[in-house]
Amino acid sequence: MYTRQTTRRIVLGGVAIGGGAPVVVQSMTNTDTRDVPATLAQIRELVAAGCEIVRCAVVDDAAAAALKQICASSPVPVVADIHFDSSLALKAIEAGVGGIRINPGTLRGGKRALERLVAAAKERGVVIRVGANSGSLPRDILERFGGPSASALVEAALMQVRMLEELGFYEIKVSLKASSVSGTIAAYRAFATRSDYPLHLGLTEAGPLVPGLVKSAVAMGVLLMEGLGDTIRISLTADPLLEVDAAWALLRACGVRQRGVEIISCPTCGRAEVDIISMVQELWPQLRAVEKPMKVAVMGCVVNGPGEAREADIGIAGGRGQGVLFKKGKVVAKLAEQRLVAELLRAVEEHINTEQTTG
Amino acid sequence: MYTRQTTRRIVLGGVAIGGGAPVVVQSMTNTDTRDVPATLAQIRELVAAGCEIVRCAVVDDAAAAALKQICASSPVPVVADIHFDSSLALKAIEAGVGGIRINPGTLRGGKRALERLVAAAKERGVVIRVGANSGSLPRDILERFGGPSASALVEAALMQVRMLEELGFYEIKVSLKASSVSGTIAAYRAFATRSDYPLHLGLTEAGPLVPGLVKSAVAMGVLLMEGLGDTIRISLTADPLLEVDAAWALLRACGVRQRGVEIISCPTCGRAEVDIISMVQELWPQLRAVEKPMKVAVMGCVVNGPGEAREADIGIAGGRGQGVLFKKGKVVAKLAEQRLVAELLRAVEEHINTEQTTG
Repeated sequence: MYTRQTTRRIVLGGVAIGGGAPVVVQSMTNTDTRDVPATLAQIRELVAAGCEIVRCAVVDDAAAAALKQICASSPVPVVADIHFDSSLALKAIEAGVGGIRINPGTLRGGKRALERLVAAAKERGVVIRVGANSGSLPRDILERFGGPSASALVEAALMQVRMLEELGFYEIKVSLKASSVSGTIAAYRAFATRSDYPLHLGLTEAGPLVPGLVKSAVAMGVLLMEGLGDTIRISLTADPLLEVDAAWALLRACGVRQRGVEIISCPTCGRAEVDIISMVQELWPQLRAVEKPMKVAVMGCVVNGPGEAREADIGIAGGRGQGVLFKKGKVVAKLAEQRLVAELLRAVEEHINTEQTTG
Repeated sequence: MYTRQTTRRIVLGGVAIGGGAPVVVQSMTNTDTRDVPATLAQIRELVAAGCEIVRCAVVDDAAAAALKQICASSPVPVVADIHFDSSLALKAIEAGVGGIRINPGTLRGGKRALERLVAAAKERGVVIRVGANSGSLPRDILERFGGPSASALVEAALMQVRMLEELGFYEIKVSLKASSVSGTIAAYRAFATRSDYPLHLGLTEAGPLVPGLVKSAVAMGVLLMEGLGDTIRISLTADPLLEVDAAWALLRACGVRQRGVEIISCPTCGRAEVDIISMVQELWPQLRAVEKPMKVAVMGCVVNGPGEAREADIGIAGGRGQGVLFKKGKVVAKLAEQRLVAELLRAVEEHINTEQTTG
């Protein structure tokens, strides 16, 4: 069902993007980048959840200076997010980032600044992400296309690409940010017919958790299922850990990549005999770091639960005071309700180890 | 971009479904249905958030009896969710529900029970939702199709439809629940080529909030953008209010229907100068009940915020101690940080009233 469109491959801090490489999961720290311990702590949390490239905002010299320690200790490549200021970009490159995200068209210092930046990026093997954003398209493009249409976004992105290509630079990935779902889908589709640079999928200002997830999942899901997209960030006004959870859920849902625990749980209804919501909330932080793909069920009633969740590797189903632990739909133990979570975690641990030994 | 596929129209408790009617938003209570005040309180909350049909689980006679009061006081039609027990279904019909959700193939009492049920539904103008679920397909169908494939789901659903049609009953809507996103998409697409009954879109056991939203949004988003789907429920292991928020976000994202406030907010990043996450969390419960479609922005920095969110009708952008209120990208007031939320709510109120008067 799923065929990836062919893009050229770039390598960002050792991580391949495009050219058939697995779709890479990104997120962005929301700590103050100048606070090195806090930023590194958040990066480690994000990486444990499956983040493979992390972006940090670089707002001033102190942040650029902090990047040096951050890059040295981060377990995954770091991308510096920079607006307008080419000297910050140069400092970020010297600090050891794997990539920078800039708009070459709005860089202060014009062509000369860009030349110096590109030379430094080439020397250090740094990737540059360019991208058009419907909220900040150049006036001439807006006039030519009569507004921030998909074609306008594509043209703006291609202009940025050409500015780099003219300097002999090709380690590029591209994002196209429209404010609507249909605009985003149209822009990425159109760009892919014009260029083979790898695509960074994302939605701009997606918003709070619930609508943000919905918009990102629809837009990026449609594109991923068409084989478009080489790296993704789901950006949310929420804890960045949830961005990583969501990115993996999306890749899994689209049949693109598998990682970690997929929780199967019944919707809440008047029939549930335990508080599934709290049970899942208690379990998830302890299951998030599991890398091995597996399905874990948390079901509300003992009678239908194990059968309904028979595709789960392991599951629990609650009851009044009592519950069951089941594997592949078969009940393997009856348990007091308060032991359900602990026993489930033990069974997950066992499942990881058993299969590692045998397979 | 969006063309609805034509289905026949049914009417559920006064709400039209299919045949070009707006896609209807449903949710399900998770209170004990026997607790009438709690159930009605939740129904009112869901309706204020935009829920147009509400489903309640009916597990026993006491729940069926409670339905009478619930149906009498609910501001929207009620659907009774019943498994196996035709006498509960009869009681629900007598209680005044607009629809029942049953599987005619697994009804205790066989054909005779179904005949009585259908006669009662006809008499009271009650809609019946039938549906196939990949976790509970009849054995003969599983054998014939070699597993719970899309074709197997379609065949199982059509069998249920035929059982009702043979009794002269046509007020039917249909759901097809596969456990995977691609399976769900394939099943609904295939059904729509074989039948014109209105489609109830949903995913079974979608799971906790984040992965549940992602899976539902991708599967249902793809279908909605193809013009499929006459009523939707996003089922989550979470507060049902979030199901309603998510359903509207999905309809909006797919360009299917507009309602209420769309929040535009920047992703969290090291650049934000206020705590946008808490600000949005404080705002949303107060904005959820707004029906008039409008865009409200909550941005993290004063410099780029108003410009980046220029398509918002109203917005606030935070700063250190100070922020701004803006309309359509133009700053209209500078405000102390602690007044931002209150002033935004006042501006929303004004926006509702002004336009109601003039337009």
